[in-house]
Amino acid sequence: MMKNNIYIFVASTLLLSCQQKTEKETVQHEPFPYFISDLEEGRELSAAMERSVNKWPGKLPAENELYSQFKYTKLKGFDYNGGDGTITRRDPSKVIRENGKYYVWYTKRHTITRPQGAKKATDEIPSTDWDLAEIWYATSEDGFTWEEQGVAATRPPKLQAGYRSVATPDILKFKGKFYLYYQAFTEPSGTKGDDCNIAVSYADYPDGPWRHYNEIIIPNGPMGAWDEFTVQAPTPLVHNGEVYIYYKVDFNRPIDSRKGYKGKWSAIGLATSKDPLGPFVKHPLNPVQNSGHEICFFPFKKGLASLVIRDGNEHFTVQYAEDWVNFEIASITEMMPIGCNAYIPDAFADNGDGRGITWGICHFRNVKGVDGKWYSELARFDCDLSLDVHDPEMKGFNNLWDPEIYYKLKLSKAQRERIKKENDKLTK
Amino acid sequence: MMKNNIYIFVASTLLLSCQQKTEKETVQHEPFPYFISDLEEGRELSAAMERSVNKWPGKLPAENELYSQFKYTKLKGFDYNGGDGTITRRDPSKVIRENGKYYVWYTKRHTITRPQGAKKATDEIPSTDWDLAEIWYATSEDGFTWEEQGVAATRPPKLQAGYRSVATPDILKFKGKFYLYYQAFTEPSGTKGDDCNIAVSYADYPDGPWRHYNEIIIPNGPMGAWDEFTVQAPTPLVHNGEVYIYYKVDFNRPIDSRKGYKGKWSAIGLATSKDPLGPFVKHPLNPVQNSGHEICFFPFKKGLASLVIRDGNEHFTVQYAEDWVNFEIASITEMMPIGCNAYIPDAFADNGDGRGITWGICHFRNVKGVDGKWYSELARFDCDLSLDVHDPEMKGFNNLWDPEIYYKLKLSKAQRERIKKENDKLTK
Repeated sequence: MMKNNIYIFVASTLLLSCQQKTEKETVQHEPFPYFISDLEEGRELSAAMERSVNKWPGKLPAENELYSQFKYTKLKGFDYNGGDGTITRRDPSKVIRENGKYYVWYTKRHTITRPQGAKKATDEIPSTDWDLAEIWYATSEDGFTWEEQGVAATRPPKLQAGYRSVATPDILKFKGKFYLYYQAFTEPSGTKGDDCNIAVSYADYPDGPWRHYNEIIIPNGPMGAWDEFTVQAPTPLVHNGEVYIYYKVDFNRPIDSRKGYKGKWSAIGLATSKDPLGPFVKHPLNPVQNSGHEICFFPFKKGLASLVIRDGNEHFTVQYAEDWVNFEIASITEMMPIGCNAYIPDAFADNGDGRGITWGICHFRNVKGVDGKWYSELARFDCDLSLDVHDPEMKGFNNLWDPEIYYKLKLSKAQRERIKKENDKLTK
Repeated sequence: MMKNNIYIFVASTLLLSCQQKTEKETVQHEPFPYFISDLEEGRELSAAMERSVNKWPGKLPAENELYSQFKYTKLKGFDYNGGDGTITRRDPSKVIRENGKYYVWYTKRHTITRPQGAKKATDEIPSTDWDLAEIWYATSEDGFTWEEQGVAATRPPKLQAGYRSVATPDILKFKGKFYLYYQAFTEPSGTKGDDCNIAVSYADYPDGPWRHYNEIIIPNGPMGAWDEFTVQAPTPLVHNGEVYIYYKVDFNRPIDSRKGYKGKWSAIGLATSKDPLGPFVKHPLNPVQNSGHEICFFPFKKGLASLVIRDGNEHFTVQYAEDWVNFEIASITEMMPIGCNAYIPDAFADNGDGRGITWGICHFRNVKGVDGKWYSELARFDCDLSLDVHDPEMKGFNNLWDPEIYYKLKLSKAQRERIKKENDKLTK
């Protein structure tokens, strides 16, 4: 082996000495070092290594405070009526800590039947999983076992925004008062789309009582605007003394008779106000995030970090915007929590020193109930996107999946036929 | 509803007219359009939307020829001795088509026991899954059912490179002849690390006979170089009339008594030669890819595309380098094939018009055998990374996973204890 090593050394040196043939006529230097800490400054790098050294927050995921894998735990304390689909809980708010306990708000639907679609919907039969819903809340000592406390924001009287359903809440604490923002529906979701806008209720205490503020707080945009039809998933934070609400918009979809470009797009907008009750001003650079379906934003250092989940070119990433507007990709990960929001101790601190997150609540919208149909349940996720926690178990490169999980991703019949045709063409 | 809409329109107009408060003092323009095709040129965009419009190959994954999801199919025709661990097949080559059939080469280990680790390894007992292995090959009419044809590259006589094991092959066809490149081991893998370098065998026909070319074709780098210890997974292609071999290197690892920076890093290098038997010259910008563990490269348009799998900041991406050296991220995806290589009809065409891939062979290294231990098996993956196929089923945003799959990602005992401590601290 020793002899072999010497041979290799000599051979490599010879090879290196004749490396004059590259297009860029690079001056030949030492080979790239074994230890990255030995990398000389100013060395010419490939585009990829340039990103490793200068773009990514850490040269490796393990050194990147905004990289994490995710772990999941079933929650205790919630009743789903035996999984018959009449009770659903989903779209959790951020978790905050008040009165020595964790608080979370969420969409709860408790109806006489499962969702039946918009055509069969009545005043008592829901169209979708979040139709005929209210905002409920629960508290917990440890974040694993929860006690449902009751309703927070009810559906207001008929014809007021949200009278059909209120859903997908998030919480704000601002100058000692509490604000619950949520989607307000005036028709069964699915009638024309998932059209809604944003309403708010407020209270002096996290346990309420909550009062409806009877004005639409973030309206849809005008005809032809990206947010003409949907303004969803309001997510309030505090920055520079103002309330920042990030919200999701579905756009670029052919709706009704309008024919157009076919791509289904979800993106994130921002609206700000000095007063939690508005008026909110939409940011001129909207959309500020080009991907994602759910929203989970948290203060991080001076800026704002974001979990970009499920949809779009930049799905499965964690992003960061020092100015709270212009986001860059900070890491790429997998198995991100769906419909999630986090325990964010400094969500409203507005101190320019965001510390990040280690857990939160998400939902699964495809829990198999009795008779094989679906409902949604809340779950806990854990991660290490915190400057104060260093959990190497959260920083691995990837999960090792059982082959059976890959094999569940099957070719369809149409795909098998396409492949057969391609094979036949080659055989001829 | 009509009334409500009018209200919203008026409210939005009012809000838009008072959007003078942004930091950048942007001149207020129309809201972002509902249909992306209506986007006016020159509009000021957020960093994220700037990437959507100008960086990503398609504004949405569905329009991105280098975005795909992956489907998996169990292969027929291979015998694994009832899954007792004495037979393993892994590390497939690219698939090529010759004599009206598909051909694939791979690492095959058929030993008297399962792998036992380097300390227990003998001339007959393997250390790792790829110790005491040879390069075998199989052919197929349809890519699903395979017939194993026998050994291609054997282990050469004692003390020649590869006498302990030959593994992880890939195939080259160049000027009518065939070349099999592979990792050559002179000690049981795991003795000091996974140290090896690259050897080659050649033949006039894909069915052989194969002759060893008894020189190390890509040697390890000199002491202190990133590739001092490992040069793995050689992947030959043809570009500008030359043979381009991409190879994987493990570096930045504390080995033996050398203490250093702790990050485990896998990256990809490039070596080129006018002659398939060398001498190969390593590219001065190596490493050319900063992430990945396996290698799958394929000609795409003028350039080269790459599946970046498992390890590093840029895992789970598909990348593209027009100059075959400087790679940029072209898409982010999930559940990429492990240890894969593709059916690449134009791998050696060198025509500046790469058409992409739709399927290939990968491996699972964690197939549960009898008595619950592991072996490796080959599998088929399908995708749509082709300019000639348009399969909308491969272009969805994400897979909808069963909640039970998330719940398999459990908190460890150590993590639960950390969380309990954090909760206790808050309660005090």
